[in-house]
Amino acid sequence: MGETRTTAGLEQLKELLALGVEQGVGVGSLLGMTIESLEPGRVVFGLTPRPEFSNPLGTVHGGILSTLLDSAMGCAVHTSLPEGAGYTTLELKVNFIRPVPVEGGRLTCEGTVIHGGRKVATTEGRVTDAEGRLVAHGTSTCMVFPPPTGQ
Amino acid sequence: MGETRTTAGLEQLKELLALGVEQGVGVGSLLGMTIESLEPGRVVFGLTPRPEFSNPLGTVHGGILSTLLDSAMGCAVHTSLPEGAGYTTLELKVNFIRPVPVEGGRLTCEGTVIHGGRKVATTEGRVTDAEGRLVAHGTSTCMVFPPPTGQ
Amino acid sequence: MGETRTTAGLEQLKELLALGVEQGVGVGSLLGMTIESLEPGRVVFGLTPRPEFSNPLGTVHGGILSTLLDSAMGCAVHTSLPEGAGYTTLELKVNFIRPVPVEGGRLTCEGTVIHGGRKVATTEGRVTDAEGRLVAHGTSTCMVFPPPTGQ
Amino acid sequence: MGETRTTAGLEQLKELLALGVEQGVGVGSLLGMTIESLEPGRVVFGLTPRPEFSNPLGTVHGGILSTLLDSAMGCAVHTSLPEGAGYTTLELKVNFIRPVPVEGGRLTCEGTVIHGGRKVATTEGRVTDAEGRLVAHGTSTCMVFPPPTGQ
Repeated sequence: MGETRTTAGLEQLKELLALGVEQGVGVGSLLGMTIESLEPGRVVFGLTPRPEFSNPLGTVHGGILSTLLDSAMGCAVHTSLPEGAGYTTLELKVNFIRPVPVEGGRLTCEGTVIHGGRKVATTEGRVTDAEGRLVAHGTSTCMVFPPPTGQ
Repeated sequence: MGETRTTAGLEQLKELLALGVEQGVGVGSLLGMTIESLEPGRVVFGLTPRPEFSNPLGTVHGGILSTLLDSAMGCAVHTSLPEGAGYTTLELKVNFIRPVPVEGGRLTCEGTVIHGGRKVATTEGRVTDAEGRLVAHGTSTCMVFPPPTGQ
Repeated sequence: MGETRTTAGLEQLKELLALGVEQGVGVGSLLGMTIESLEPGRVVFGLTPRPEFSNPLGTVHGGILSTLLDSAMGCAVHTSLPEGAGYTTLELKVNFIRPVPVEGGRLTCEGTVIHGGRKVATTEGRVTDAEGRLVAHGTSTCMVFPPPTGQ
Repeated sequence: MGETRTTAGLEQLKELLALGVEQGVGVGSLLGMTIESLEPGRVVFGLTPRPEFSNPLGTVHGGILSTLLDSAMGCAVHTSLPEGAGYTTLELKVNFIRPVPVEGGRLTCEGTVIHGGRKVATTEGRVTDAEGRLVAHGTSTCMVFPPPTGQ
């Protein structure tokens, strides 16, 4: 099989996510987000909508889809970082493609790094429903903090 | 005092929001969003972060701020609609200005219509913290469905 | 060879672009944009920067890259339209990845439809330099006007 | 009257723009952009469309409006910078509100800083036509480079 590629950022993210699951805190626990895949520069998260995720019109709130995308896109950047580096999300844009029924079944969100620079990273994400149809997609810009010099 | 301006969309939104509060369903109830003000073309929502709103880094998740903005910006459009019209959000963009601590107190979000056209509306939103500092802002594009002809 | 797939929108766009080249009008002629490829849902345009494309800092102005992306993303939607349909671009977002020198050689921009719906289309674009490096990317939302009923 | 507020960035931008006008190079000269107002954190530019600014559909190309907005939003950030600081535009988003005829007369674009931080600035812009109607608006994210330490 050979070795699996990893990064310091990916290992750190794994620890943070495991801690969140263990302690049951954070948006991941609140919404029931699951980790389907984590590799350098690419993550896949899952989410099964519940009635309390609805907007006043009765479908899944755009904010829930934005949260899923923000998580996947930010974590994709996190998994690509070298030792000691950090990041913060500056902005995200989300396109909503079709209404998602609150009982429409499991959503899957893939986040992928487009450009992983030393100071700035850009990333994209796509949410598909249980039938594989695209329901939302987005892009995001992150500022990367290099490892402290001297490290 | 004189009369208060209203619209069919504003009246419909009030009913939908009241129903959501009464039944305790929807993202508004899940997050504890409150309605501070509703007028044609402008709404103000409030939200007090809780520990379960955190991202893996320990601050308020960008998805929560996006949810607040999506709600306020979409509802601002809703309040401006004439009788029988509907809308759907096509896209939103959010800028995150400063990290929000999960115990940093109440957030306020104002959504305002920039352009309210017959087919398309654009809207903007700003989130401020308890000290009045800007923590996030965004814009959104909505498609408006005109009232059925013959109505 | 087999048949080449086409659409009414693609044929119409070809005529409009040929007319623009013939008459030497339009932004395509102003900037010297070239058509590298046109197929349903995907177009490739080329552009060689000139000194007059510079911003006050001396590199290629972000507006030039935005123009190239707007053209490629809009035309990708245009090529996917059925007989009698039209479209308008509602919004675009562009990420600038690296500064482009005004004498850095030919840029290539690919525009691709992400979602081609009956009422709304979303599209993405990527600009690469002569060495194949990504210099900018974007997404765009278009409103599609269906063919007049009865046609 | 009292003193006029200024900044090192505003003074530097004035010199760069004057140089561009004098040498007749750059996108400003190519398009005929004019400077209506420059103050710290806010600029106003003017532009009169010409037939060569058209898209294949015959109205002003979205890229021209994006160029005007990118210039005004970027320069608004530039005017707010302290001595020795620099900036680069990371991304911009533009909403197109109404088609602009190529012979529709003068456009005015105001760019304003929303948030001017030490590392990141956000800015917004609005384009209006000769009748004062909004034709496009946008937001942008810039990365700010602090003055070299020791300066």
